[in-house]
Amino acid sequence: MSGFYVDKKDCSHHRIFPGVDIYTTYGDSMMLSLVEFEPHAVVEEHSHPHEQMGLMLEGEAEFIVGGESRRIGPGMMWRIPGGVKHKVIAGDKPVRALDVFHPIREDYR
Amino acid sequence: MSGFYVDKKDCSHHRIFPGVDIYTTYGDSMMLSLVEFEPHAVVEEHSHPHEQMGLMLEGEAEFIVGGESRRIGPGMMWRIPGGVKHKVIAGDKPVRALDVFHPIREDYR
Repeated sequence: MSGFYVDKKDCSHHRIFPGVDIYTTYGDSMMLSLVEFEPHAVVEEHSHPHEQMGLMLEGEAEFIVGGESRRIGPGMMWRIPGGVKHKVIAGDKPVRALDVFHPIREDYR
Repeated sequence: MSGFYVDKKDCSHHRIFPGVDIYTTYGDSMMLSLVEFEPHAVVEEHSHPHEQMGLMLEGEAEFIVGGESRRIGPGMMWRIPGGVKHKVIAGDKPVRALDVFHPIREDYR
């Protein structure tokens, strides 16, 4: 692949929870992560020192960030400061989202 | 709006070139920018010290990054190191993309 242009097939794949797959690529200081949930799949509550922001691409999911719950559909964005606990529960249909991390998550390279 | 959840209507709007609108939100260290191009609209060649990564959401555009040209469609991603010149030319249909910047672009707040 080119250094500038990246396709999903060029990304690093990780299954991070049952039914939750991520496809990551990184630059100098940020990491993009395409996230795919099977229906009802769950990203269990966790936190990390990295800031996380993202955009819902397809489907709906319940987000719980810092104890604040919200139904998130396509076009909605989130911003999760480092250290804030968060959990995501996919709805009845497959979910696709984009997450961005700074700094780069070494565990997702 | 909540600090954690952001809708496009909560974003800051800037028309950065004729037919090119951005809707931005930022966290502690990153900025998300939803970009909308009218057909054939152009982001003229420019560079900035911020790293830029992004994802094509809808439509197709020609990207020229560091002199390397590529037709970019939905699902393709880009990573533009700080200081590298880039230009984008929308195709025949409207284009929607997500850009991410680190550090935050003060001019797009």
